[in-house]
Amino acid sequence: MTEKIITLLTDFGAEDWFVGSMKGVMAAISPGVRTIDLTHLIPPGDIRRGAFALKCAYHYFPRGTVHMAVVDPGVGSDRDILVVRGGGYIFIAPDNGLLSYILAELKEKAVYHATRKEFFLDKVSNTFHGRDIFAPLAAHLAGGISANQVGPVCIEPITFPMPICRSVDTYNWEVEIITVDNFGNCITSFPMNKMEDPPDKTRPTGIRITIHDEEIYLPLIESYSAVEEGIPLAIPGSCGFVELAVNSGDAARQLNLHSGDRVNLKIE
Amino acid sequence: MTEKIITLLTDFGAEDWFVGSMKGVMAAISPGVRTIDLTHLIPPGDIRRGAFALKCAYHYFPRGTVHMAVVDPGVGSDRDILVVRGGGYIFIAPDNGLLSYILAELKEKAVYHATRKEFFLDKVSNTFHGRDIFAPLAAHLAGGISANQVGPVCIEPITFPMPICRSVDTYNWEVEIITVDNFGNCITSFPMNKMEDPPDKTRPTGIRITIHDEEIYLPLIESYSAVEEGIPLAIPGSCGFVELAVNSGDAARQLNLHSGDRVNLKIE
Amino acid sequence: MTEKIITLLTDFGAEDWFVGSMKGVMAAISPGVRTIDLTHLIPPGDIRRGAFALKCAYHYFPRGTVHMAVVDPGVGSDRDILVVRGGGYIFIAPDNGLLSYILAELKEKAVYHATRKEFFLDKVSNTFHGRDIFAPLAAHLAGGISANQVGPVCIEPITFPMPICRSVDTYNWEVEIITVDNFGNCITSFPMNKMEDPPDKTRPTGIRITIHDEEIYLPLIESYSAVEEGIPLAIPGSCGFVELAVNSGDAARQLNLHSGDRVNLKIE
Repeated sequence: MTEKIITLLTDFGAEDWFVGSMKGVMAAISPGVRTIDLTHLIPPGDIRRGAFALKCAYHYFPRGTVHMAVVDPGVGSDRDILVVRGGGYIFIAPDNGLLSYILAELKEKAVYHATRKEFFLDKVSNTFHGRDIFAPLAAHLAGGISANQVGPVCIEPITFPMPICRSVDTYNWEVEIITVDNFGNCITSFPMNKMEDPPDKTRPTGIRITIHDEEIYLPLIESYSAVEEGIPLAIPGSCGFVELAVNSGDAARQLNLHSGDRVNLKIE
Repeated sequence: MTEKIITLLTDFGAEDWFVGSMKGVMAAISPGVRTIDLTHLIPPGDIRRGAFALKCAYHYFPRGTVHMAVVDPGVGSDRDILVVRGGGYIFIAPDNGLLSYILAELKEKAVYHATRKEFFLDKVSNTFHGRDIFAPLAAHLAGGISANQVGPVCIEPITFPMPICRSVDTYNWEVEIITVDNFGNCITSFPMNKMEDPPDKTRPTGIRITIHDEEIYLPLIESYSAVEEGIPLAIPGSCGFVELAVNSGDAARQLNLHSGDRVNLKIE
Repeated sequence: MTEKIITLLTDFGAEDWFVGSMKGVMAAISPGVRTIDLTHLIPPGDIRRGAFALKCAYHYFPRGTVHMAVVDPGVGSDRDILVVRGGGYIFIAPDNGLLSYILAELKEKAVYHATRKEFFLDKVSNTFHGRDIFAPLAAHLAGGISANQVGPVCIEPITFPMPICRSVDTYNWEVEIITVDNFGNCITSFPMNKMEDPPDKTRPTGIRITIHDEEIYLPLIESYSAVEEGIPLAIPGSCGFVELAVNSGDAARQLNLHSGDRVNLKIE
């Protein structure tokens, strides 16, 4: 019998007893279920960052994994709770956009509002649904209940618009900084495979980006160390998007870029 | 057979090899025992913060769980080591107050001094009892030895006084900030059930607190988002106490409150 | 059947989805393998700090454990990947010095270059070998393949020189600060057993260190709390080396010491 896995992605931080008590709840309901942290350091309330982290990680897990994501600034309000089945996985999250990428990517899926209180803790607080609703729900789903048992079908889950990636012409794109990672690398919305598209052209060797009205040339390379320290570069990122980085440096700081910024990107 | 769980709560931080080596020791002694982190980011030496985190989390775990807590500024001195059996759990901690809430809550319990060296590592350092004493002891207890095998009964374990919560009159209380969480929420010593007590009164709608001689009115609400961003509020906390918070803000900073501060609290 | 363990040591931080996706890869390849974090907060690119953390922790794990260490500033370049079998363990790391202590300590060992692509993910990115090469390799090794299946023997793995510890005379040594831990304790390269060597001498009671041309006397004590708060001291460290510490303080800051600094140490 394969061990069932629940992944946890939250903005709860690691300083407190929050994450630990969620795992206690899960272990009490479904002994033997294994929990794996994606991260608990999503900046508080940053739904877009959480959504992107989930998008990048979920498909590396074995089929049957339950992915629980709780970035939930509306906790205690009347926002709904979603359970999504698709791609061989189960996803649980507040209905606030956190599953936007998942819902956009999954072709076949079923989406439910989790309303059936028998899958929550008996006593539900207003401020910690992670422990009182999400954790027991994840444990029951990992333990064998079907997604359609949690409540009615959800017709229109909340999603945010996908990051823009607009063609001005074949070599000229308006893109967005999706997020900035722990090293300061800026992940753009420009997929690597578009970089390789132009059939009439030799392999591109760099990009020219316009940031805050300033134009900067970045060589397109395969390894941070292919340029000298402190030099900005473009690199195929580990999630399939072009990333802006600085060898041994912090690109976001050096290029003054933030999540959500729009930049013009020319392939050269 | 149910998988045995050991929880870990320390102030060791996550930067170093400390926590990992404790888990290695546990796995070597009791293969198959599962470890779950409560937190390792208790501020160094902050016994009260550690004690409260343990109080909030322990009872969510399945019976039989071994809770190991090491916030131990006296490591290497002649302070004792406690093993407590009660409520279906085993607790291990230095005898320095870290189990104060546990000992106050558990009606039936047995308390022992862990002195039997056969349950420690062969070589015990003076600076890392977490790895050399607490971890192997936890692994042996999770692996099946009884609490009473670890050493003699402890007559008078060290405890700190419970946080004050004194009635001035029915609607007027002197309370204490027990701790400040990762979001800056201030957890008071005022239990929610006392809030609901006054039988002659409609449900309270707010509290008035006096902090540093200044009086502030806080609406008592059920969800952070029920007020505008930046507005301070009182909310039933996830551990059963009234918490002072700020929607999308840091209440400790905004109200200038610290762990241990005493505030006057009026129910309105 | 004993559960197999993979430990993870990286500089990836805990903010992102990096560590979680590595564990997903491992779980998909070798279900039931248990992962234990040593740390993911090695300062980015700090090979020496990572190497020392691994040295301190690895031998506490049960035999058969696979230790995967990824501090890899050369990711994407043509640096090699090492698999080392020795001491009952398997080690996986980039060939950049990260296994220097391990290779120095293990008397009998076999060292291989991991080149066989069938043990990597099908699609290998240039920036995240942790997920695409190291994680699947670790999972396959934990799952049962032999170290010699991963590729050819490595004749000369890269190592950095061991930290100096030079005798000027019996009581006078030139040593190095190996690293500074999370509490600010400075770990010297002076092994405790050398401290106890001098046969003609009563047990030493302190050391005199010369730092930046200033001489400071540090009592050699067994517990931080044996001196008053704020007082610097020398103490037998948990990894077997003399550590410079300050009771309830930060020795690195107070003594202005950094990793790699050389200090003169006199036993008194």
